Amino acid sequence: MTETNPRILLARRPKGAPVPEDFRLEEAPLPDPAEGEVLVRHRFLSLDPYQRGRMDDAKSYAKPVALGGVMECQAVGQVAASRDPRFKEGDWVLGGYGWQTFSTRPAQALIPIDPKEAPPSTALGVLGMPGLTAWVGLTDIGQPKPGETLVVSAASGAVGQVVGQLGKIAGARVVGIAGGQTKCDFALRELGFDAAVDHRGDLVAQLDATCPQGVDVYWENVGGAVQAAVFPRFNDFGRMVMCGMIAQYNTASGAAAAGAPPGPNLGPVVRKRLRIQGFIVSDTGWQRYARFRAEVLGHIAAGRLRWKEDVVQGLANAPQAFIGMLEGRNFGKLVIALD
Amino acid sequence: MTETNPRILLARRPKGAPVPEDFRLEEAPLPDPAEGEVLVRHRFLSLDPYQRGRMDDAKSYAKPVALGGVMECQAVGQVAASRDPRFKEGDWVLGGYGWQTFSTRPAQALIPIDPKEAPPSTALGVLGMPGLTAWVGLTDIGQPKPGETLVVSAASGAVGQVVGQLGKIAGARVVGIAGGQTKCDFALRELGFDAAVDHRGDLVAQLDATCPQGVDVYWENVGGAVQAAVFPRFNDFGRMVMCGMIAQYNTASGAAAAGAPPGPNLGPVVRKRLRIQGFIVSDTGWQRYARFRAEVLGHIAAGRLRWKEDVVQGLANAPQAFIGMLEGRNFGKLVIALD
Repeated sequence: MTETNPRILLARRPKGAPVPEDFRLEEAPLPDPAEGEVLVRHRFLSLDPYQRGRMDDAKSYAKPVALGGVMECQAVGQVAASRDPRFKEGDWVLGGYGWQTFSTRPAQALIPIDPKEAPPSTALGVLGMPGLTAWVGLTDIGQPKPGETLVVSAASGAVGQVVGQLGKIAGARVVGIAGGQTKCDFALRELGFDAAVDHRGDLVAQLDATCPQGVDVYWENVGGAVQAAVFPRFNDFGRMVMCGMIAQYNTASGAAAAGAPPGPNLGPVVRKRLRIQGFIVSDTGWQRYARFRAEVLGHIAAGRLRWKEDVVQGLANAPQAFIGMLEGRNFGKLVIALD
Repeated sequence: MTETNPRILLARRPKGAPVPEDFRLEEAPLPDPAEGEVLVRHRFLSLDPYQRGRMDDAKSYAKPVALGGVMECQAVGQVAASRDPRFKEGDWVLGGYGWQTFSTRPAQALIPIDPKEAPPSTALGVLGMPGLTAWVGLTDIGQPKPGETLVVSAASGAVGQVVGQLGKIAGARVVGIAGGQTKCDFALRELGFDAAVDHRGDLVAQLDATCPQGVDVYWENVGGAVQAAVFPRFNDFGRMVMCGMIAQYNTASGAAAAGAPPGPNLGPVVRKRLRIQGFIVSDTGWQRYARFRAEVLGHIAAGRLRWKEDVVQGLANAPQAFIGMLEGRNFGKLVIALD
């Protein structure tokens, strides 16, 4: 077999927004699984905003991608060769690694998935890291209650769409913030949110109109102007679930930059007894994956939860798709489909 | 009996820092307790920073003092007349109200105190609202663990001194921030803190020197430059207990001002999984008062917990003492002793 492993490397560290020249496509030899490992042929790659952080050489919760290293991501694929009794050729698995066509992985790092339960790509979205992120953040921090107002930014994105729908299931009134009329219409009509706010329009006026009772839970995916507009609207005992601040991922040195724009004055945190809390899904999420998956599959089966994917064909198109995602040009969970 | 009730009223709403003309001393007639009420002769008044907020006509967690109304505070005193079987003349009680010499209070609003357990004025400090504040904030939010670094601002103040000592009892390394050498020496020698930082000096250099392992818990009493210096030092999973931000209580409209200075960029909240949470002791604290009091009395009896009061004699001196407290001129828990 002369098959190779096409893959995309970090060619240089981006200055601000990534450009195509920051990435390099190469053909590598096919890796060999060691004893206890599995060779996974990737079928779908997950492109997610956190990967922008890995391109910087900055202190963070995870190590940066090395210069010349394979770009990081999770992948869903099928076992191409197994040196572990738990997996056989053809099995679908979650846990492939990197912007590449094949990866070798320790068997215990892989989660078997059943393509009859849901399309395999959903293991990267509604049933994967983004869905788990929504579930963990709402369970541990957001805790929406019936009648409360939950505002979610990046509402049509991989995490936001699940946050809003889980909020509805919990009985909250859900207001989604998204960029453009198409995404707002989607949030209202397909996801069943109660209201939608287009962040390209007048944020303050739209929030006035859609959040007359204030905000109890704000799911923060974006930062910047959206954060500034929502923050003053918190009710007493409001919760701000800090999932990400994509608006500043492209600033000089990412979220850690000393030159990052200032945030809100924290006086209202005392007065209103607010809770502002960040989390990273990998800290405690995967230990609870089985419970999460069962719950969400139940919601899907009952018709209470939908998902939208933005599927881009071909590894070579990953850099452009990723660059577009950071500008909000994707529509739904972004995945790369490999042949 | 021709006794009167000298009291201090809010003469006008302060513009920025209060001045003596914002207060007015008057002699009112002695109030009569109704059935079920008690007339309390105040012995000690508690002056606390939160009372600055009550002088503004701004939306907050509690109603402002009315113009021409009696300035708000808690008082400890003795029953002068009782129309409730639970109290008799001479009993010591916590729960008198206002910058005045007498108040009538519903019997169920009063907590009997035993002067043999501790000096009665401590019911306004280490065994009262400030001590309870420290205990609630550490129990619910700060949760210091052995070996962690706890930084407390306004460290020699009514709340800060208890926070730091409870932190030491929990096994944390405690760094106190205070204004001036005298208060810093006090924190080290009398309170047993591990290090002290004088916020009038070079904050950054002193924090570099005293917090080499970063900060796990920051008790926020002050805001402003101290907050800005501590915030970047949080370790992963750090907790910021938002108790108050006295540095901005005197800005135009208090903490609610739209023109309040910006706060920290919240990017690190995600990356480091920080929890920033505000609380008001009256929400849930008094329901737990008995447990708090027993615990703290135990610490005092065992010699693990001390307190320092700044006692000012005479009602007429209350405004000046209050003004000074907002500038950090008190040293320890500020109480007014009445004759």
